[in-house]
This record gives sequence, structure tokens and C-alpha cells, in this order.
Amino acid sequence: MSIQIPRGTQDILPGDVERWQYVEGKARQICKNYNYKEIRTPIFEHTDLFKRGVGDTTDIVQKEMYTFDDRGGRSITLRPEGTAAVVRSFVENKLYGLPDQPTKLYYIGPMFRYERPQSGRFRQFVQFGIEALGSADPAIDAEVITLAMDLYRSLGLKKLKLVINSLGDKDSRTAHRNALIQHFSPRIEEFCTDCQNRLEKNPLRILDCKKDRDHELMKLAPSILEYLNSDSKLYFEKVQQYLSDVGIEYSVDPGLVRGLDYYNHTAFEIMSDAEGFGAITTLSGGGRYNGLVQDIGGPETPGIGFALSIERLLLAIEAEKIELPVEASIDCYVVTLGELAKEKSVKIVNDIRKVGLSVEKDYLDKKVKAQFKAADRLGAKYVVVFGDDELSRNVVSVKNLQDGAQEEVEIDRLVLYLNDKILRS
Amino acid sequence: MSIQIPRGTQDILPGDVERWQYVEGKARQICKNYNYKEIRTPIFEHTDLFKRGVGDTTDIVQKEMYTFDDRGGRSITLRPEGTAAVVRSFVENKLYGLPDQPTKLYYIGPMFRYERPQSGRFRQFVQFGIEALGSADPAIDAEVITLAMDLYRSLGLKKLKLVINSLGDKDSRTAHRNALIQHFSPRIEEFCTDCQNRLEKNPLRILDCKKDRDHELMKLAPSILEYLNSDSKLYFEKVQQYLSDVGIEYSVDPGLVRGLDYYNHTAFEIMSDAEGFGAITTLSGGGRYNGLVQDIGGPETPGIGFALSIERLLLAIEAEKIELPVEASIDCYVVTLGELAKEKSVKIVNDIRKVGLSVEKDYLDKKVKAQFKAADRLGAKYVVVFGDDELSRNVVSVKNLQDGAQEEVEIDRLVLYLNDKILRS
Repeated sequence: MSIQIPRGTQDILPGDVERWQYVEGKARQICKNYNYKEIRTPIFEHTDLFKRGVGDTTDIVQKEMYTFDDRGGRSITLRPEGTAAVVRSFVENKLYGLPDQPTKLYYIGPMFRYERPQSGRFRQFVQFGIEALGSADPAIDAEVITLAMDLYRSLGLKKLKLVINSLGDKDSRTAHRNALIQHFSPRIEEFCTDCQNRLEKNPLRILDCKKDRDHELMKLAPSILEYLNSDSKLYFEKVQQYLSDVGIEYSVDPGLVRGLDYYNHTAFEIMSDAEGFGAITTLSGGGRYNGLVQDIGGPETPGIGFALSIERLLLAIEAEKIELPVEASIDCYVVTLGELAKEKSVKIVNDIRKVGLSVEKDYLDKKVKAQFKAADRLGAKYVVVFGDDELSRNVVSVKNLQDGAQEEVEIDRLVLYLNDKILRS
Repeated sequence: MSIQIPRGTQDILPGDVERWQYVEGKARQICKNYNYKEIRTPIFEHTDLFKRGVGDTTDIVQKEMYTFDDRGGRSITLRPEGTAAVVRSFVENKLYGLPDQPTKLYYIGPMFRYERPQSGRFRQFVQFGIEALGSADPAIDAEVITLAMDLYRSLGLKKLKLVINSLGDKDSRTAHRNALIQHFSPRIEEFCTDCQNRLEKNPLRILDCKKDRDHELMKLAPSILEYLNSDSKLYFEKVQQYLSDVGIEYSVDPGLVRGLDYYNHTAFEIMSDAEGFGAITTLSGGGRYNGLVQDIGGPETPGIGFALSIERLLLAIEAEKIELPVEASIDCYVVTLGELAKEKSVKIVNDIRKVGLSVEKDYLDKKVKAQFKAADRLGAKYVVVFGDDELSRNVVSVKNLQDGAQEEVEIDRLVLYLNDKILRS
């Protein structure tokens, strides 16, 4: 009996993987332009990290983590998101002590959440994200948002909607929190148990409850924007000014609170309103998290970041019917004819590869016609035909599959010949 | 209190990650030359896959796997190696039915084994590996070995030792197996419990026991090469012929059996004998596994592959004191002077990034001198100086940090100016 892939995960196969490579290459290129450098943290972390760094009251920590004991009895968890681990690494490796601040980092890698699988939602999914740690300049909030938008646009996406909000500083949040408790308390028994628990612990979480989202008190809930103090207001205005300066359109949505506990000041989401994209429209989100580094045991350090799932990004690309310029051709296919030629072709193929060309040959004793077909399917630019007859004369015949031209080339000259032709094409 | 990274895992930070990127880029490039295409399988699989695909009697399955139940009660395991999952995917996605055979695949990603951490051995480590499924041509065995050697050489490694062996086909292995049982049986009580258990299940495993490796019977054990039938012998000779054809030096070691159950015919290991490399010398290994696809529920399909750990590859590069050509400079640093210039610089930085140049600016209100120092540290090619005075005249002053030349440029012309200069440099 055969064994299947775990539910909610997927294989990414040749023919599809090229789109992933392309999109990730773009992300890396843009990070280079913006001077964000890659960091790689482990696939799993001590469970406490996420309890502290993502928040005990979040759905992620309460319901969706892959948590288990390792053989040494330590509780470890497959990372459900990237920020907590990057911050753990920033603290543990004392990156805050390096001369170049803010520390600007990016990551690309798998994350894990035990959720009900559906279109665009997997239990293992790949996130690309960036974090800028160490600056409270609103210009860096704008930079993070701009980088995100730049990536989408560089891939050709047009139907994007950027929504921003401010969650304010600590004082603003406390004032808003009290207003929320006052607002929901009188009728909290009409809400789900989760929301009832959230009321005292973290009333902001009530606003993104999926069960109670249609309750009339939701729409009437006090907006954070009314509770921003003057510093927070000024901060938010500057972020908006910078976005306008660089020509990025946005709208402000005071209901945007994000699913993680650690945000303050700027929060944002990028949505797709492409037709045919289906129910899921959020492509990515991020925000400022000035208390997080301290929560994780580091010095007081401001921070901001964002993350996107590559799966959804690719769905958006499909929804907008964008053809990514992925190319999967090879330079040369070596067709062999006869036993001796077949054996001698191993060296010839190797010689051509040595100069950096991509070459394939037959390994299944296919007939010549089938070998030519294979060359066609692989998009080979040139076919080298090598038979026992050619071998005896120390030549091969080379066919240009684009224009059909064919000529005989001495074996010793073959590598140079192909290299010339292909470099010039 | 701060939270630490899990034991046996590591963060890969900027300054180090560039070497990883470089090495992985080379691996991808060489795979393109050899026409191997990337496959990505999940980080975890159903535990049964590894029991069946790696082998119940191996140390990996018995002692080293990260196995746990997910929230749905399924036993899942973080992948300890790459081949079983690639074969699972090959079977599940019916890749054997595609026109281009053999199916030539590569993967790069983290693997997990619960072992005692030591230099070059981590509990999470990154493997690069390839698999060629669907051909039993000895030329493909040579191709796999050649690709491995090619990668090492392209990185500048010279102190390499390639060791090959043949484990023969099924009949040869049965004959050898019987000879091994006969050899060890009379004195099996002198061996460890593991070996005693292995005697009937899989006596070949005794040969790579770490505890009993100095027992006198080990050296005297019957060699597989004496038990190869004529087909297996011929196969092995052809592999060796092809390696010689492409100029790859090797030695034959009949004691090479590899730690996984599924190998037959060709087995190989590549070692480093660089001074200062320490105790660990094996860089990579692989071999043929003609029964594996069937074991995992697919049609009878021959296969061969190899894998290497990037960690050890990087250690070998260090041991041979090779400087990888990694470059971490940026194109331009924008120095600002005064509040208004600082605010206006956001747009200028963004404009320059839009044409694909890498640009950084200050986000910490540093003094001009400190900004120039930062530009230096980042290896900036150009510094754009932008003060309130320049702003009022609609110019910036641009300094070439390589030759010290400086000139004033109109703001509107700045992007073109830099683009020209940097493209030409």
C-alpha cells in the first residue's frame, strides 16, 4: 500500500516549482535593494517562545500549534510564524550591539499551523517576511509597507488594496482598552466563550472574533483612532505622509487589529480584489511591535515587520492571469546512435556541462526518434547527434532546433562551438 | 528571562548566510546544467514512510527521529533524510507516468535527527540531494557521482576522496547475507545487543556498528565483491569505466555499506582529507536503491541518489581555507542633513530603489559623520548628500566612495545619473 502526503501539506513539483523560485528570487532581489539581509532560524523553537512572543490568548497559540516533546522531554513547537523567532535570535545573538542599526532582516521558509485546510490555506505554508529592529522612525514603517507593495507590483499584480491603521502607543491602547471593556461588558454574555474570556485579558481580540463578527456591538465599538494621544497621532500622520510621498495609495480602517497580540502603532494589510480570487483576500499583513523585543528578554527596542504567504501570492498571480517569465529550457541534448556512441557520450556530455551549459542525454536506450522528441520537450536549443559512424570520423553533427540548420563539428571543437553559439544567441 | 535556541540547532545570520546562499546557488546552477529539477516535499511525513523507506533496523528510525502525534492523532515525523519523501512524492504524483524519464530531481532543505550535537553535526541540518528515478543505466550512476564531485570542485575544494563500492543485485546480496550470517553466528555473543538483533534481520548493518568496529571478525568479514554475480560485476565495471572517462579518481572500498537499508549496486562516499577538518571526514554519500519505489507502493523502478549536508560542506571549505566570492556591498547610501531633507529623502531613496539599485539611509537621526561611517561599513559605492541647503537649490551632491570624486546633480537627474555610473562600474 502506498503512503500519502500528510493532510494540509503539498508537494511542489517541477513545472510548478519554477514559479516559486521566480517569486522568491524577486523577494530576495528587492530585499537587496532595500538592504534587508537574510536570517535563517530553526524550524522548531521552545514552545514558551511562541506563548510569549505570539501571545497566550491568540488562536495560534491556543488551537493551531504543532507542539510536542522531543526525546529529551523539552516542549518544542514547529514555528507558526516568523517574527518571534527572529526576535529571539536578535536577542540571543545580541544583534542590537552591532554598529548598523536598525537591524534589517528577511526570511523565507515554512511555517506550520494546524487549521482546516482550504484553498490557499495549508498546514505547512511558506512565509516571506521582513523585520526592521531598532528604529522608531515612521519612515521605516513606510519602508516596510513600500517593500511589500513593491514586491507585489514587481510581479505584475495590480488589483491590490492597502489598508492601514494605528493601534497607538501604550497609553493610547490602555485608554482604548478601557473603552472597549466598558462597551462590551454590559452585553458580554451574548458573545462566545472565547470573547468572554478575552474581555479582561485582551478585549481588542474580540474585534477579530470570527463567530461574533455580525453582533451589532461590533460595528459600534469605540475606534482606536479616537483614543490616539498626540504622539501617536503625529506618528501615524507621518507614516501616511511618507506613503503619499512615494506614491502608494492606501485607506485607513480603524477596525484593522491583526491577529497577533504584539502590535502597536502602525498595522497594515494588503488585500487582493481580483475577480475569481475567492473568499480569501488578505495577501499579507504586518505592523509595529515596540514591546516585543523586551517581552522576549532583550533590551527595549522598537520593531516593525510584515509577512506574506507565498501560496496566496501565487493564487493572486493566477487570479490576475499573470504569466511569470519562467524559462525551463536546456542548452543541448545529446542524441546517441549505437552502443559505442552511447558509452562515449558520457564524456562528451560531461565536457559540455563543464563550461556551464545545461545538457541532457538518454538513459533508457530510446530510439533516435524518441530522443529527438525528448530534446523537443525539454526545449533544447541544440541537438548533438553522435553515432558510431560519426565516432569513427571523430565528428558529431549539430542541429540548431530553432532554425533547423545542421553542421558537422569535430569532437574536439564541440564544446567551444556550442559555447560560442549559445552565448551569442 | 530570555529564551534560547533549541539544542543542536543554529541561527544563520547575516555575515554567514551569504556563504549558504552562494553554496546553494552553485548547487542549483549545477543541477540546471545536469537537468535536475527542484522538488519540495513537506517538513514532516507520516511516520510509516520512514519506517518503510529508511528501514526499521536503522539507527535513524530506531533512535533519532522526531516523531509525535499531531492534533488529529496521526503519527508524524520530521523528515530525517530526503530520499523517502521524494520517492513518496514520485509515487503519489505518478511522476513515473510523465514522458521524460528518468525523473531527475533535486532538493535543498532542513532535515532532523535527534543525535548528540558536535562539530558539523546538528539536530537540524540542511541537506542538498538529488535523485534519478527510472533508469538502470550505469551512466546515470556515474552522472550522480560526477554531479557531486562537480559541486565540490566548483567551490574550490581539492582535498577530496571518492570511495565507491557495489552492494550488488538481490541475488548477490542474498549470497553475501548468508555468508555474513555464517561468519558472525559462531561468535555473535561477543557483539553488542544491537548487532545480535541485526544478525538475522540485516547482518550487513553489523559492518557499520560503531561499538564493535574493532572486533577481529569485522576485518575478516566476507566482502560483497566476492559475491557479486556476473551482471552485478559488469554493472560495477561500467560505472568505473564512466568515472574514468570523465576523469574522476576513486578507490574501491568493499567495506562501504552506508547507513540506510535500501541500497543496492553502486554505493559511494565522498570524504575530505583536509588538515584541521577534525574527526568528521565524510562529506556526502549516496547510492542505488532499485527496490525502494516498490517498497513505498509504486511500480518497480530503479533509482539512485546522493545527499550532502551543507554544514559539513561549509566546514570543508573552511578547512581548505577557501574564500568564497561573496559580495555584500550596496550601491548607494543617502546621507541627510536637517529635518526637511530627512523627510524628503524617503522619496529619493525609493526612486533610486525603483530602478533596481540597492540603497540605504539613516533611520536613527545619526550625525552626518556617523552616516558616512555607516555608508563605509556597508560598502556603499556612492554617497548622496542631501541637506536643507541642497534641497532649496533642488540638487544633491554625489560622492564616489571609490575615487573620492564629488559632484552636484539635479534631483530630477539623480536616478539616471546613479544608474549610469553604477551600470558602467
